[in-house]
Amino acid sequence: MNEKFITFEGGEGAGKTSVIQELSASFDQKGYQFITTREPGGIDIAENIREIILDTKNTAMDGRTEALLYAAARRQHLVERVVPELRAGKIVLCDRFLDSSLVYQGMARGIGLEEVYAINSFAIENCMPKLTIYFDIEPEKGLARIANNTGREINRLDQENIQFHYEVREGYLKLLRMYPERIVLVNADRTLEEVVAETKRIVEDFLEMN
Amino acid sequence: MNEKFITFEGGEGAGKTSVIQELSASFDQKGYQFITTREPGGIDIAENIREIILDTKNTAMDGRTEALLYAAARRQHLVERVVPELRAGKIVLCDRFLDSSLVYQGMARGIGLEEVYAINSFAIENCMPKLTIYFDIEPEKGLARIANNTGREINRLDQENIQFHYEVREGYLKLLRMYPERIVLVNADRTLEEVVAETKRIVEDFLEMN
Repeated sequence: MNEKFITFEGGEGAGKTSVIQELSASFDQKGYQFITTREPGGIDIAENIREIILDTKNTAMDGRTEALLYAAARRQHLVERVVPELRAGKIVLCDRFLDSSLVYQGMARGIGLEEVYAINSFAIENCMPKLTIYFDIEPEKGLARIANNTGREINRLDQENIQFHYEVREGYLKLLRMYPERIVLVNADRTLEEVVAETKRIVEDFLEMN
Repeated sequence: MNEKFITFEGGEGAGKTSVIQELSASFDQKGYQFITTREPGGIDIAENIREIILDTKNTAMDGRTEALLYAAARRQHLVERVVPELRAGKIVLCDRFLDSSLVYQGMARGIGLEEVYAINSFAIENCMPKLTIYFDIEPEKGLARIANNTGREINRLDQENIQFHYEVREGYLKLLRMYPERIVLVNADRTLEEVVAETKRIVEDFLEMN
């Protein structure tokens, strides 16, 4: 059932969202049956959970509470949105999924990869994506892109946190070594056209074989 | 640090709450440093999570989403309320804890004991209660007590669900076999005075040894 479940991952400024838009436009032209989504994806329960996570009053929120809430929102989005589309035979393109929690919470935030994997494994059961594209770029370059897009300068906080972004990248590269049959690295340090072209080729090859 | 962490468990109508009240009154008289609590325990984040679980609009909530939300609320209540009191050297008496999730969601609702244990283990880390009192009573007798207390008759739904209450009891008895060093069974099919007297004796013995 998860044969057509494809996820997209990457650090800040890797260009994930732009590439998914281009891929989506191409799928439309070809008449593919597909959806694009991202958590919480407009699912009421998942949106409500998300509100608790983002509520600035909740400054005392523990890292593990947050990880459990992300897993809960993931579960509900999966059950209500992703699975019905997969069952209907559609391709599902999902912007971030389980790997983001493994990398950001399990590794960069230091909760532990195996432990964050355990609760997410509970959340998704066997519904793992069959293909994951990881857009790889050096943290400084990714952050510089964001700065260019938004017109804001990279601030002191960004600088201080550069170590965090390096840990995110290291995390993704570690997952790539752990799941070589599922995760494919795309070098995102190129023009959007080049990145889109390579992504299309990988996804098309994958769909032909599945 | 969890040397003085005591939890109380049992099915419907076992008399848990009344016994904790009596125990609490006795602790007050003796001048013990203690608190009684139950999830979500007035902790903002945990209360917010609880609202999502109980929101009747959320009829589409998946069982695993719910289990993750309970684990998240448990984590936050533990971190904000239980751990600081234990650190301060106080006895913590908690009405229901991890075992309730193992029994109700893991076993009676059929999600699976090991899987529900995994997410709760993530939530509590090593902060397991050191002593758990399980109040045991036959489901029919427990439900009859509730009916007597509230003046309402046992309805068709209660009857239909009797199997569920049997599964809850079986679940607790299974945990008792799994954790004989932690869980103590108290026969709750006696007068409140008798149940309170035995519970006091067990708890006092435990506190003397710890």
